[in-house]
Amino acid sequence: MNRNDELQLKEYLAGRKALIDATLDGLLPDEELCPPVIFQAVRYSLLAGGKRLRPILCLAAAEAVGGDSKTILPVACALEYIHTYSLIHDDLPAMDNDDYRRGRLTAHKVFGEDIAILAGDALLTEAFHLLTRKELMPGIPPEYILTVTAEIAAAAGWFGMVGGQVLDVRSEGKKVDLETLQQIHRLKTGELIRVSLRSGAILSGASTEMTASLSDYGRQIGLAFQIADDILNVEGDRVLLGKQTGSDAARRKVTFPSLLGIEASRAHAESLIKEALKSLASFDDRAAPLRLITGYILERKS
Amino acid sequence: MNRNDELQLKEYLAGRKALIDATLDGLLPDEELCPPVIFQAVRYSLLAGGKRLRPILCLAAAEAVGGDSKTILPVACALEYIHTYSLIHDDLPAMDNDDYRRGRLTAHKVFGEDIAILAGDALLTEAFHLLTRKELMPGIPPEYILTVTAEIAAAAGWFGMVGGQVLDVRSEGKKVDLETLQQIHRLKTGELIRVSLRSGAILSGASTEMTASLSDYGRQIGLAFQIADDILNVEGDRVLLGKQTGSDAARRKVTFPSLLGIEASRAHAESLIKEALKSLASFDDRAAPLRLITGYILERKS
Repeated sequence: MNRNDELQLKEYLAGRKALIDATLDGLLPDEELCPPVIFQAVRYSLLAGGKRLRPILCLAAAEAVGGDSKTILPVACALEYIHTYSLIHDDLPAMDNDDYRRGRLTAHKVFGEDIAILAGDALLTEAFHLLTRKELMPGIPPEYILTVTAEIAAAAGWFGMVGGQVLDVRSEGKKVDLETLQQIHRLKTGELIRVSLRSGAILSGASTEMTASLSDYGRQIGLAFQIADDILNVEGDRVLLGKQTGSDAARRKVTFPSLLGIEASRAHAESLIKEALKSLASFDDRAAPLRLITGYILERKS
Repeated sequence: MNRNDELQLKEYLAGRKALIDATLDGLLPDEELCPPVIFQAVRYSLLAGGKRLRPILCLAAAEAVGGDSKTILPVACALEYIHTYSLIHDDLPAMDNDDYRRGRLTAHKVFGEDIAILAGDALLTEAFHLLTRKELMPGIPPEYILTVTAEIAAAAGWFGMVGGQVLDVRSEGKKVDLETLQQIHRLKTGELIRVSLRSGAILSGASTEMTASLSDYGRQIGLAFQIADDILNVEGDRVLLGKQTGSDAARRKVTFPSLLGIEASRAHAESLIKEALKSLASFDDRAAPLRLITGYILERKS
């Protein structure tokens, strides 16, 4: 990525992150409401400085097809609710048993396991509340909202994110081949990233072809993102990442680097990024942010 | 309740339960699909012989306002998914730590804590999938489906069921007054029962007044049901109940009997049932099942 692109991307991502952070904050109930601890736990986890990749992709997809990204902010935020719930539950002692996330203690370390489970449950439930309160998205046809909500539920459910997590917890310590590893990642993170792009497109009235192209782009960057994640777990800086590096190896977790080696993993991610750019071939300049984001996937440090 | 009513009610509930059980079974993916363990855990918990109270109320509300209950079976099943997820998560070691439910080992005892958490997550997510797949409910206006989905999410979320569970786990061993106890029950079980009735009415195009009356009925029987539950926990038969009796007392959990005594609790439940019947005053004979169900609330043995 050249210096100019890099600056543009940095500015774009920071602007979008600020918009999404402010919207998330505004949508959440105050910490003082009853029962207060659930709102403290939800705010702690949701406003902990995530990258906001899924909402950013949702808004960028809307703009790429000529839509108005401001209108669909509730959907972008719902995607972040779902992502955050999955992190809280994945970190639980019965799952990955992680003490740190985004540079801070995990929710169950701060609020207890019971409240962490319930904070995840609340975020998942409220995501669907946010998606279906049609008064929050005036002007969007109810049919579009229903389609998108059903697609998001499918991407997060037993044939999506939950299914991927089940495969993942059941694979630890076992011999996993490349095909299974790709399936785990596709389900666990890929489907939600893909549906983030599809949602932005569908809500903006995009054609089936455009939606399918953005879907391909989502699938490709989703897997590239996960490979980059695995590489960062080996090579990354603990301080920048905000969590322990080397944790995959310590847990004898199968990753792309452990199966293919670092160099071949990087090459695989790069070829996926090239494919992702090809998927955007028929789009005009309004897809510029999506093109820039491909650079971020490989070069990010956290 | 007279003998004739009793027989009629028994037949009605059994017929409805059979219909809902068959629909739940048909909607669930096979146990062999990948990852298999999640479908085993979901089938184990969902098809464990629950009373199906929430779906039965949803269908009965639709019929009471002249609607077609068959059309809205997916919504009735989604309500049971949400109820079942809440039981799985409530039973977890970090929450109520219960080993038995509906006469069988709880999900986490059979499948492990990680899979139990994920089975709950899957059921909650798939409930919203079921609610929003408009092809499952042809002929129902998308606006109605959106309204109902948003109301169900609200009833299950942080100002509903999850909020009630938070209050509940944070109240154990503390001094709880009657007002707080009523609030816990309203949030933890009342809101979902109430929205079950509202959903059936709204999807059938009921007037605001009729929906409000069914809503009142739901609030009243919901609380009466919970009081009856507390009484059963003291006086019930462990075999019929399928779970340990006296567990509330052992856990020093505040209940209606512990605050008011058994007799005053029973009187309170009876007066709520009278109110519930009054809420149905303007309905014709199509509300007969709802009227019969009030008898079941107080006289059930499990």
